[in-house]
Amino acid sequence: MRAEMAEQPEVLARMLARRDDVVAAVRRVVPPELRGVVLVARGSSDNAALHARYLMELTTGRPVALAAPSLWTRYGADTSLRGWVAVAVSQSGRTPEIIETVDRMRVAGARVVAVTNAGGSDLDAVADVTVSLEAGEERAVPATKTVTASILALAHIAAGLGTEPWVAEQERRLPDDVAAVLSSTDDVDRALEVLGQVETVHVGRGYTWPVALEAALKIKETSLRHASGYATADFRHGPVAAARRGSGVVAYAAQGPVLEDVVSLAAEMSARGLPTVIATDATAHLDASVPTMAVPGGLPEPLVAIPLTVRAQQLAYAVTRAAGLDPDRPAGLSKITITR
Amino acid sequence: MRAEMAEQPEVLARMLARRDDVVAAVRRVVPPELRGVVLVARGSSDNAALHARYLMELTTGRPVALAAPSLWTRYGADTSLRGWVAVAVSQSGRTPEIIETVDRMRVAGARVVAVTNAGGSDLDAVADVTVSLEAGEERAVPATKTVTASILALAHIAAGLGTEPWVAEQERRLPDDVAAVLSSTDDVDRALEVLGQVETVHVGRGYTWPVALEAALKIKETSLRHASGYATADFRHGPVAAARRGSGVVAYAAQGPVLEDVVSLAAEMSARGLPTVIATDATAHLDASVPTMAVPGGLPEPLVAIPLTVRAQQLAYAVTRAAGLDPDRPAGLSKITITR
Repeated sequence: MRAEMAEQPEVLARMLARRDDVVAAVRRVVPPELRGVVLVARGSSDNAALHARYLMELTTGRPVALAAPSLWTRYGADTSLRGWVAVAVSQSGRTPEIIETVDRMRVAGARVVAVTNAGGSDLDAVADVTVSLEAGEERAVPATKTVTASILALAHIAAGLGTEPWVAEQERRLPDDVAAVLSSTDDVDRALEVLGQVETVHVGRGYTWPVALEAALKIKETSLRHASGYATADFRHGPVAAARRGSGVVAYAAQGPVLEDVVSLAAEMSARGLPTVIATDATAHLDASVPTMAVPGGLPEPLVAIPLTVRAQQLAYAVTRAAGLDPDRPAGLSKITITR
Repeated sequence: MRAEMAEQPEVLARMLARRDDVVAAVRRVVPPELRGVVLVARGSSDNAALHARYLMELTTGRPVALAAPSLWTRYGADTSLRGWVAVAVSQSGRTPEIIETVDRMRVAGARVVAVTNAGGSDLDAVADVTVSLEAGEERAVPATKTVTASILALAHIAAGLGTEPWVAEQERRLPDDVAAVLSSTDDVDRALEVLGQVETVHVGRGYTWPVALEAALKIKETSLRHASGYATADFRHGPVAAARRGSGVVAYAAQGPVLEDVVSLAAEMSARGLPTVIATDATAHLDASVPTMAVPGGLPEPLVAIPLTVRAQQLAYAVTRAAGLDPDRPAGLSKITITR
């Protein structure tokens, strides 16, 4: 896991180098009158898809939905997808449920874009265009480099489906920023100290909601410890009650229109006496009362999710090692999950 | 909470009596060429909306999406919703975030259907048609009668938006079935005994996935104990690892195409030594090795979610009382949550 985490700057640099090709390939398959986008994924890939759910609705100005695979694989859905693009994300390209769903969506009229780390896979075979992650084989069961690569690939696909979300120039610092995060682990050690042995609740909003979900998933997968992820608004609508006892809180806050939502929730939890940490690129704007896991500033808001996800990976790794477990071999999981 | 749970047969009977009016009112506002449906809700209402996400895609044959409110309230989304229907669910009709989102969706071209328990609310004012739950005031903070009423109201709206999902006759037994569930609590007592003091994981699939989420939410709200809800497929993609230690499992299984998925996961968890309970209408088909919380058979598959949700409410109530807490007054929650 740690070795694969360390490859992320390289993997992201390779993805950046292929940006124009990806955008052009996607533009070739977008229907003349795009009606909407549906995302198909499970597990960590689903967290990357949720990030794209936000970004793609803004770049396309069209509704974006997350697929309900069982409608297609079990309930015989006959949803009209004429004018729609289905974007499927599967690291292995081999989850049968994803492939069957996408295949049926194609028959229902959708153009299909696949994101996968496995060329020549079954998913490839049902797609109009495949964006390969070229992340190299992922051996560790907890996905890391393929998750951040998927977020970036989906951002390029978002540009191909609609308007450019930012100037390409602004992405270039991403590999260096991620390298900087990987080489500075003091913040993570301190977070571990603050959080101690408690179960953790992870919160974010907008682009950082999927980071919170991915953090919770990674901790559950590797440390076998319960963890949960929420959007701040969902958290306030109920689960906040249970977080009053014996939980640590990790808040993921990127500079932008929802920064205050996340930061104020973190401050509130901290004031209630819960061990709280903020992972953020906005360190300059925050008071020092809540410990932070910093990432560099200067990236476009949606891309800050990438270094924040790396912080979440580091935290999951550290929590797992502190519990005397091997993050590479979580009990009860295998690399390809066969759901139908 | 208990008093309001007991009102559910009556509330459902009143909703059934208004079925034809609701269907007709919705038909009057459906665009001639319906393109899709987007659901807007938070908290327990969001669980009812997730149920409708499945049912409406099947009745309309059009894509159905769950809204991302922050896109509208914070990120200035300009998503074209011409030909779309936005369905907003808010018990209080007063959550500012929901009202602002729906108002902007209306400007973006959507027809708006509101589901609320509060006539003359702000939500009412931005809707083309309002379906009133007529559930009577809900005083307890944990929503119960408005949740099951919302599921049924949304099922009637699904019929109005597309094809009738079942013969109206088949719904008539619902109040009696729910009354039978309310009056038989032996299964719940036994479930409490089996699960003991452990944290619980709730799993379902398709129409019972939202039941699992609602069960977890209700337990968190009332008992202040951690609980989590998953779709079976998502659970197998990672969180299953963390469930190996100190968790109880409650599986919600309705007769239909995904019954086996849920039942087999429950059997697997039970075989691993985790305390496991199945809530189901399929008692005749199951072997007796895993304890069940039964609900009557004979309802259309999607509607089984309603008595199963009542079982989840009973369980949350029992867990909370067993912990010596007052389910009506959860610490740190208020009846109307102000998120923006």
